[in-house]
Amino acid sequence: MQNHEILVMNGPNLSRLGRREPDIYGDVTLDAVNAGLRERFPDVAFTFFQSEYEGALIEELYRVEDRGGCSGAVLNAGALTHYSIALRDAISAVGFPVIEVHLSNVHARETFRHTSVLAAVCAGVISGFGVDSYRLGVEAITHMAGAES
Amino acid sequence: MQNHEILVMNGPNLSRLGRREPDIYGDVTLDAVNAGLRERFPDVAFTFFQSEYEGALIEELYRVEDRGGCSGAVLNAGALTHYSIALRDAISAVGFPVIEVHLSNVHARETFRHTSVLAAVCAGVISGFGVDSYRLGVEAITHMAGAES
Amino acid sequence: MQNHEILVMNGPNLSRLGRREPDIYGDVTLDAVNAGLRERFPDVAFTFFQSEYEGALIEELYRVEDRGGCSGAVLNAGALTHYSIALRDAISAVGFPVIEVHLSNVHARETFRHTSVLAAVCAGVISGFGVDSYRLGVEAITHMAGAES
Amino acid sequence: MQNHEILVMNGPNLSRLGRREPDIYGDVTLDAVNAGLRERFPDVAFTFFQSEYEGALIEELYRVEDRGGCSGAVLNAGALTHYSIALRDAISAVGFPVIEVHLSNVHARETFRHTSVLAAVCAGVISGFGVDSYRLGVEAITHMAGAES
Amino acid sequence: MQNHEILVMNGPNLSRLGRREPDIYGDVTLDAVNAGLRERFPDVAFTFFQSEYEGALIEELYRVEDRGGCSGAVLNAGALTHYSIALRDAISAVGFPVIEVHLSNVHARETFRHTSVLAAVCAGVISGFGVDSYRLGVEAITHMAGAES
Amino acid sequence: MQNHEILVMNGPNLSRLGRREPDIYGDVTLDAVNAGLRERFPDVAFTFFQSEYEGALIEELYRVEDRGGCSGAVLNAGALTHYSIALRDAISAVGFPVIEVHLSNVHARETFRHTSVLAAVCAGVISGFGVDSYRLGVEAITHMAGAES
Amino acid sequence: MQNHEILVMNGPNLSRLGRREPDIYGDVTLDAVNAGLRERFPDVAFTFFQSEYEGALIEELYRVEDRGGCSGAVLNAGALTHYSIALRDAISAVGFPVIEVHLSNVHARETFRHTSVLAAVCAGVISGFGVDSYRLGVEAITHMAGAES
Amino acid sequence: MQNHEILVMNGPNLSRLGRREPDIYGDVTLDAVNAGLRERFPDVAFTFFQSEYEGALIEELYRVEDRGGCSGAVLNAGALTHYSIALRDAISAVGFPVIEVHLSNVHARETFRHTSVLAAVCAGVISGFGVDSYRLGVEAITHMAGAES
Amino acid sequence: MQNHEILVMNGPNLSRLGRREPDIYGDVTLDAVNAGLRERFPDVAFTFFQSEYEGALIEELYRVEDRGGCSGAVLNAGALTHYSIALRDAISAVGFPVIEVHLSNVHARETFRHTSVLAAVCAGVISGFGVDSYRLGVEAITHMAGAES
Amino acid sequence: MQNHEILVMNGPNLSRLGRREPDIYGDVTLDAVNAGLRERFPDVAFTFFQSEYEGALIEELYRVEDRGGCSGAVLNAGALTHYSIALRDAISAVGFPVIEVHLSNVHARETFRHTSVLAAVCAGVISGFGVDSYRLGVEAITHMAGAES
Amino acid sequence: MQNHEILVMNGPNLSRLGRREPDIYGDVTLDAVNAGLRERFPDVAFTFFQSEYEGALIEELYRVEDRGGCSGAVLNAGALTHYSIALRDAISAVGFPVIEVHLSNVHARETFRHTSVLAAVCAGVISGFGVDSYRLGVEAITHMAGAES
Amino acid sequence: MQNHEILVMNGPNLSRLGRREPDIYGDVTLDAVNAGLRERFPDVAFTFFQSEYEGALIEELYRVEDRGGCSGAVLNAGALTHYSIALRDAISAVGFPVIEVHLSNVHARETFRHTSVLAAVCAGVISGFGVDSYRLGVEAITHMAGAES
Repeated sequence: MQNHEILVMNGPNLSRLGRREPDIYGDVTLDAVNAGLRERFPDVAFTFFQSEYEGALIEELYRVEDRGGCSGAVLNAGALTHYSIALRDAISAVGFPVIEVHLSNVHARETFRHTSVLAAVCAGVISGFGVDSYRLGVEAITHMAGAES
Repeated sequence: MQNHEILVMNGPNLSRLGRREPDIYGDVTLDAVNAGLRERFPDVAFTFFQSEYEGALIEELYRVEDRGGCSGAVLNAGALTHYSIALRDAISAVGFPVIEVHLSNVHARETFRHTSVLAAVCAGVISGFGVDSYRLGVEAITHMAGAES
Repeated sequence: MQNHEILVMNGPNLSRLGRREPDIYGDVTLDAVNAGLRERFPDVAFTFFQSEYEGALIEELYRVEDRGGCSGAVLNAGALTHYSIALRDAISAVGFPVIEVHLSNVHARETFRHTSVLAAVCAGVISGFGVDSYRLGVEAITHMAGAES
Repeated sequence: MQNHEILVMNGPNLSRLGRREPDIYGDVTLDAVNAGLRERFPDVAFTFFQSEYEGALIEELYRVEDRGGCSGAVLNAGALTHYSIALRDAISAVGFPVIEVHLSNVHARETFRHTSVLAAVCAGVISGFGVDSYRLGVEAITHMAGAES
Repeated sequence: MQNHEILVMNGPNLSRLGRREPDIYGDVTLDAVNAGLRERFPDVAFTFFQSEYEGALIEELYRVEDRGGCSGAVLNAGALTHYSIALRDAISAVGFPVIEVHLSNVHARETFRHTSVLAAVCAGVISGFGVDSYRLGVEAITHMAGAES
Repeated sequence: MQNHEILVMNGPNLSRLGRREPDIYGDVTLDAVNAGLRERFPDVAFTFFQSEYEGALIEELYRVEDRGGCSGAVLNAGALTHYSIALRDAISAVGFPVIEVHLSNVHARETFRHTSVLAAVCAGVISGFGVDSYRLGVEAITHMAGAES
Repeated sequence: MQNHEILVMNGPNLSRLGRREPDIYGDVTLDAVNAGLRERFPDVAFTFFQSEYEGALIEELYRVEDRGGCSGAVLNAGALTHYSIALRDAISAVGFPVIEVHLSNVHARETFRHTSVLAAVCAGVISGFGVDSYRLGVEAITHMAGAES
Repeated sequence: MQNHEILVMNGPNLSRLGRREPDIYGDVTLDAVNAGLRERFPDVAFTFFQSEYEGALIEELYRVEDRGGCSGAVLNAGALTHYSIALRDAISAVGFPVIEVHLSNVHARETFRHTSVLAAVCAGVISGFGVDSYRLGVEAITHMAGAES
Repeated sequence: MQNHEILVMNGPNLSRLGRREPDIYGDVTLDAVNAGLRERFPDVAFTFFQSEYEGALIEELYRVEDRGGCSGAVLNAGALTHYSIALRDAISAVGFPVIEVHLSNVHARETFRHTSVLAAVCAGVISGFGVDSYRLGVEAITHMAGAES
Repeated sequence: MQNHEILVMNGPNLSRLGRREPDIYGDVTLDAVNAGLRERFPDVAFTFFQSEYEGALIEELYRVEDRGGCSGAVLNAGALTHYSIALRDAISAVGFPVIEVHLSNVHARETFRHTSVLAAVCAGVISGFGVDSYRLGVEAITHMAGAES
Repeated sequence: MQNHEILVMNGPNLSRLGRREPDIYGDVTLDAVNAGLRERFPDVAFTFFQSEYEGALIEELYRVEDRGGCSGAVLNAGALTHYSIALRDAISAVGFPVIEVHLSNVHARETFRHTSVLAAVCAGVISGFGVDSYRLGVEAITHMAGAES
Repeated sequence: MQNHEILVMNGPNLSRLGRREPDIYGDVTLDAVNAGLRERFPDVAFTFFQSEYEGALIEELYRVEDRGGCSGAVLNAGALTHYSIALRDAISAVGFPVIEVHLSNVHARETFRHTSVLAAVCAGVISGFGVDSYRLGVEAITHMAGAES
């Protein structure tokens, strides 16, 4: 029996995970990350989505909302974290909690990466644990959902 | 006889009008808004367009321009209002006036919503009147067009 | 029968409308603007007020409030828009909605004209349509009042 | 025998005290405040002055100065607190101490209310105690005057 | 009978009152200030506390809270006023009102002394009256407490 | 024969010239300054005007404009120099040149006095020469007018 | 067998957890949080430490370091997060990873809480999950340590 | 024999080159620019790409990378230059050098056009030479590639 | 008999006066300006100095100081006005008053020309009167010197 | 036959090219750069000039202007790029186009190197191509000159 | 005979000198530094003090003051340098000169380390010489004291 | 035998040492300072250099570098400290350490003197000790040189 439906959504450039700047982001591909989550959380029904387009990320949030919502979303919005107010508004609009995650510790990088326009409307933020950030995000959602039921 | 052709263009998240944060944006859907405009202005030939994609909004402006332009456009760019310099450049590039409209009074909300990168190249701004902002925008265009003819 | 009482209030330098910098503000005088509104909205009972004094504008708002209020006010505060927090406080204090209007598109002018200290406490903002901004403001008020009744 | 002459001066919008935003400012009128002060300090000769005009406040300060000064002034400049450098210069110019008072705790309100252009030239500041702020201001003046004699 | 319990709390460097920079702070010692308060308000049960440690001030607030609270606290946090968000959080956490007081008019001194991180969570602010600031603070508390009973 | 008509206009607090902070502004009264100008420039027809009210200064500029204008105005706007955008707009609106003058060297005083919102629309600026600033302003106008004739 | 030694360190005001502003921080006490962690992670040897003193937090980090270090620390520095560069330097100095955690979503609160001076030298950040933030922090450390072994 | 493969990529609104604001951008169309480059550099194998979508530009960079890379890219990102951190991250991720070019001298235009979020990760910048900027960009790449071989 | 010795010093680019941007600076050469001053003030012993070098301007101020000083200097420092703190220090060091003059109204030009690092240590500022600014500067010095004798 | 006269001008510290920080600037000396340009462009009459003095660079621009001008200048102003408004004014004053060049990609270095006070008055900017930046600059000038003839 | 009494005071984290980040701070311990000073200056009576607590540093300054003062203090306040206004006030309050010293060149490190809130009230600053900074500080004090005797 | 070669370099206005603002800078001339250094350090081979020209200071650094370098330089750059990025680049370029010294405590003076553009590339900074700052600078160099040998 699957207890939770969780959306794992990745924004621009995360398609290159494992190939782009491996000293910052590690050498695991996004497919491997997703497979790892599926394996670790066999009871969770995952939806995986990645796009380089801000508009596509917004549409996906609404598509999930329209088909009945989910327990929560783990969102690595990549660089859109820092300027996409449109994505922020979509997060506000959907009825499920969204967790902002980052692979790297954004506070130890360029100053413009210290600002998130999304964080204020997310349920929480997890950053700096490499691909383990996704796992912690999923755990946070399952815990939240459990706490409410 | 239809006197004016007017583009009514909505940006990211306005697809959710009536469902998203109704205490801020009201409970009328975008389709209902558009139907209301058609009913109220039977002499205007409307083009309605909505997209979550910055790029699609730019393309639509050029598509209208290329098929001969229009009397003007009423644009609710949503969150793109605050950072899409690309949309600003497209507004500058087309030969018809664009009116920036907002449902809510953006000045009574978060600070980052006080800044519009579009307003300087729009013909005018109307904000805070809920869905009536669209009607006022259409009236402003028909008046402008009338004044010039 | 007159359905609405509306205050049309103009601040500093709008006494010169039609004579001051006509390339920015047009060549219609304030008296002509007011006459035009009276003619177009025969059912509205207008009060017209203009002053170069911040204090006089505040007093007028309270005078209207004290005689029973009105459906709303159309306010072109001129340069006071950018710094008169006292006028802002008066707008907050009265029980009727105030619409901020501007003749020119303030966002296409000097940077200090991009900031309004009034907008956050006004019901809405209309700018950039020349003297038609006043007409749109009156329409917005009559629509608002109608919606509530 | 009256020991002190004290000016109690109120700026824009304080004429509405008791009627304007009572959740912030309380429901006591300015007349009642003044009467309360007279009753509590029977030995003080009060001058009460209120105006919506910056210029009138400046003139009143000079009028009091010219008729021989006073022990001090309790000034609630309202919104002028935040931008009237002209009033600041008048406070610097007169020979008696001025106490800046506020009904509400301005630091718990909008950011623009955190700045006072007057405070640096006032003898002291008292804010946040509702109408009791005036009483504390009068006490401070009588104490100061006593200390110097 | 003692009507009120009041905490008078002083932060870093106020141990030197009367010895440090007497042209700014006067020549009365903190012990003398406290004695003066006791004498003037015989009905008030005072707790006096001074420390150079941010942590000790926080602990004292909680100690008073834990033993049943008090009518209010008069707090001269000294330089901590300008940066101790930890002290601010403690003030928010306790159930009694805290009055921020200053001996000197901080707005007439260096720019960094114009900012208080505490004021927004204090009940009110009194500054500029020398050691009389403490007395006015005590009066404000007794008045507040009286108004509520 | 009088060659020039010149308006000498003084803003808030300059009524106190000679009495207010004489170490900054000197001990000559405004009447004495005006008399000195009349004596030194017997061929100039002067209009002298002073007010504590921003609105009155604006009205005077328009009054002079309406009676046929003048060769130019020497304006010491006092503290309004730093924030009165309304006065700036009036200066822009009239057809004669306005010279901004200051008694003291504003750049050697508080930072907020370094900014003039008027200077950009004035013909020139003269500051720092005490009451001689007025004389230099009158000379500048007569020279300008001569150069154009 | 206990696999990991983990320091759970709390800064100013977290002693009041469960009592202070429960709508923001919940109603579980710090002791209960610690007991919960012990129960959930029986294999972890925990050190729990709380202090209102910046200096004590620094000393504790060095005490743990000196006795041989640990697998990592979960640190909720409270308000010190926003200004304690001294704590930041201590985190840099010790040889074990430190995870910054927050109960509330700091990005949805006052602006000054959006800045962390610690984050850049921490291994990662977890915020917004209530007391579950601590659990996620412990998991992150055990995962990190596992990955390295 | 073709020595170099070069990507010439244009962002939003450059589809209108030759038609949009010709006084700033000239009257040569993008097709003509591309044809000119092909003619001038017969030995270069060009890929031409234009899109109004940030996402499409990112995808194209990765498509070229995935098919084996190229000698370099000449990128006129249009308005995205000023805010697309997502595009910046893609430029960092690919293995070939990218040259930022602009038709106009962006430093002689609006302030917001002076900032490039891309430049720091580009190999170099060329701006202000009209369509000749593209030619200089191609030359720079062929020279770089030659220098390395 | 020559009553005053006055230094007229011009900084970078003023060697081109009359040839450089005549719409801003007019078409009179610096030699003609100097000749005009000599003619108008036959009783003044002028020293004229121009250099493109900051260092040379400083040396000239000290050369004049060392040979006995002068009644005052009229200084048009050109662009050095906006950043030469070294020149500012030299002006502070010499014993004679320096008048800052500008041909154009610097406040009506680019923002970076609104700031003068020299003005705070000059006796006064005169700007906006074209070459007449120099004459007014000389008059100001002769008047100052007369007032002191 | 020589078609173009081109000034190649280098500012402070470029005398050390090839010796100073070779990892940033390469190991080719300025003489070698100049020789390379002469060899590559045999038809261009070059003037080479380098100085550590801002004043000398300004004088050289005017010297070239006075002897009849040239087709254009390639200017590497070194650190003066970031603050020499005097050099900016000289570039504005001469009748020939000036191209700003940099060896390194200034946007990938310290923040203060991201600002150019010269760029707004230069014809274009080329940066990041090492000594090839000079060659591209010369090509840009010959192309511009060709386009105009 | 010991000529001078000197306080050598170290703030947070300097207890770890020689162990913490040795590439920045070197590998000499604080005890060794102190021993070195004692050896080098046999005539100086040193007091050595280190604490992680801001409050303890303030208390120590007053303890020394109360026992009769000293010739001066050499203070390495560590991170407190950047925000401890309380420590600044204590330095102002004591009667002996305090020299601010740093091991590393703080200007070559993170931006927040460029600001010292202490420096303005210290007698002088010495930074960047490793542990030799202490020796130079002691020499400066002995020289100052000698100059005054 | 002379162990060290040291350059003592002074920038603009230090030629006036002893004559300019003696209350800030003391009354010892630069020649006397240099003589004092020679006397105190008989084993050091000094080069003394002063200039009002930024360019000359740069040239001197390179002249010393070219003749074989030195143990280090003591540099009082005067006002150039605050803006001469060109001098900064020269300091970076030479192979010997440069110590930034100041006579006065720059942090106790105007805000613009708190910023040094040189400090980040200097070996260390010494300020506030009057002419003794030079002596301490020389000692620092001899110590550094000794430590390395």
